[in-house]
Amino acid sequence: MTPSDFSIPEYEHDGAAIYRESFATIRAESDLKRFPAALETAVVRMIHGCGMPDIADAVGFSPGVAEAVRSALVGGAPILCDSEMVAHGITRARLAAANRVVCTLRDERVPALAAEIGNTRSAAALELWRSELKGAVVAIGNAPTALFRLLELLAEGAPPPAAIVGIPVGFVGAVESKAALAENPWEIPYLTVHGRRGGSAMAASAVNALAGEPE
Amino acid sequence: MTPSDFSIPEYEHDGAAIYRESFATIRAESDLKRFPAALETAVVRMIHGCGMPDIADAVGFSPGVAEAVRSALVGGAPILCDSEMVAHGITRARLAAANRVVCTLRDERVPALAAEIGNTRSAAALELWRSELKGAVVAIGNAPTALFRLLELLAEGAPPPAAIVGIPVGFVGAVESKAALAENPWEIPYLTVHGRRGGSAMAASAVNALAGEPE
Repeated sequence: MTPSDFSIPEYEHDGAAIYRESFATIRAESDLKRFPAALETAVVRMIHGCGMPDIADAVGFSPGVAEAVRSALVGGAPILCDSEMVAHGITRARLAAANRVVCTLRDERVPALAAEIGNTRSAAALELWRSELKGAVVAIGNAPTALFRLLELLAEGAPPPAAIVGIPVGFVGAVESKAALAENPWEIPYLTVHGRRGGSAMAASAVNALAGEPE
Repeated sequence: MTPSDFSIPEYEHDGAAIYRESFATIRAESDLKRFPAALETAVVRMIHGCGMPDIADAVGFSPGVAEAVRSALVGGAPILCDSEMVAHGITRARLAAANRVVCTLRDERVPALAAEIGNTRSAAALELWRSELKGAVVAIGNAPTALFRLLELLAEGAPPPAAIVGIPVGFVGAVESKAALAENPWEIPYLTVHGRRGGSAMAASAVNALAGEPE
């Protein structure tokens, strides 16, 4: 192809039209009937962020998770994130109470804590969540070890967060940590995507959708 | 399930072992034969970041893209990102020359530029790349309109970047913008994932892998 032969196809320039068309496609291609209304919007956003309508079938949730996230955020709860990508994917303008978005992964104490507890840095970073965990919104979009460690802290009696968006990704521990989250015996409202798929975009999309008024 | 019945499964605590096991699974489940060695590592990392071995089949690339990214970064080129999530997914410690990682999306001039050019903010943000575009590494992991706009700027004679990692995601324009990238007539080395799938994690994973020495 030479530069004179190359032509860029017509494309939609209007952000609002792109959203409308995207959401219409997602709703046409996904089976969303089983979701409560407040959660359906979040699932649409999660699909929008990954391009895969079929993740709807893998979503696991507690019936009240949308309300739990929303009311915690309205009440000023912080959002505790396992990775910088999740933290930077959260749209601050959507947060009702200028909520703090916290990621402790790069705290200088974390490498020593990881050595001390014999776990990954992603897991060790949760040691620095302890004072903020009660009533917080947790958003895990990267590390299965962070989600496993959270469940361990809760089993040891740590104060419960208001809700857990737990969508780590990958080949080692992601499936198992999300299955354990879905069985959490403390009735902590949760949202997940079962299987290997997940990631920071899905976790951030979910929080962004649940943070705002239904659209 | 009651708290006393709940048990957390055994899981791997060692980060290096998790990487080893993950990469072994990915290599067992993916067909990577068609990739040059320097790119194969990047594809493994991209799969690792999304949990989907089958994206290997959707990867499109120029044969020299790995070397182009690596040598641009060694030479001090900036990395121009379309979203904050891509920018924050890039591991600074892997960059050979303390390269600048630039995202102009939140620049205060962008809303006015978007109105002026009649395009999305993601596209308008590229107006602020013009002085840095020559020889840069571009990493697009979110907006199809950013990739379309980049191709328009190049068609208008903007100086070429060293390489384009172009992996926007979604239902409107993602497929078409990536197809156009693959046909770019200026022989700019590129890396993409065709289809609707993509995202900031894939784009950042690719840059991180290509930035470092082969593992």
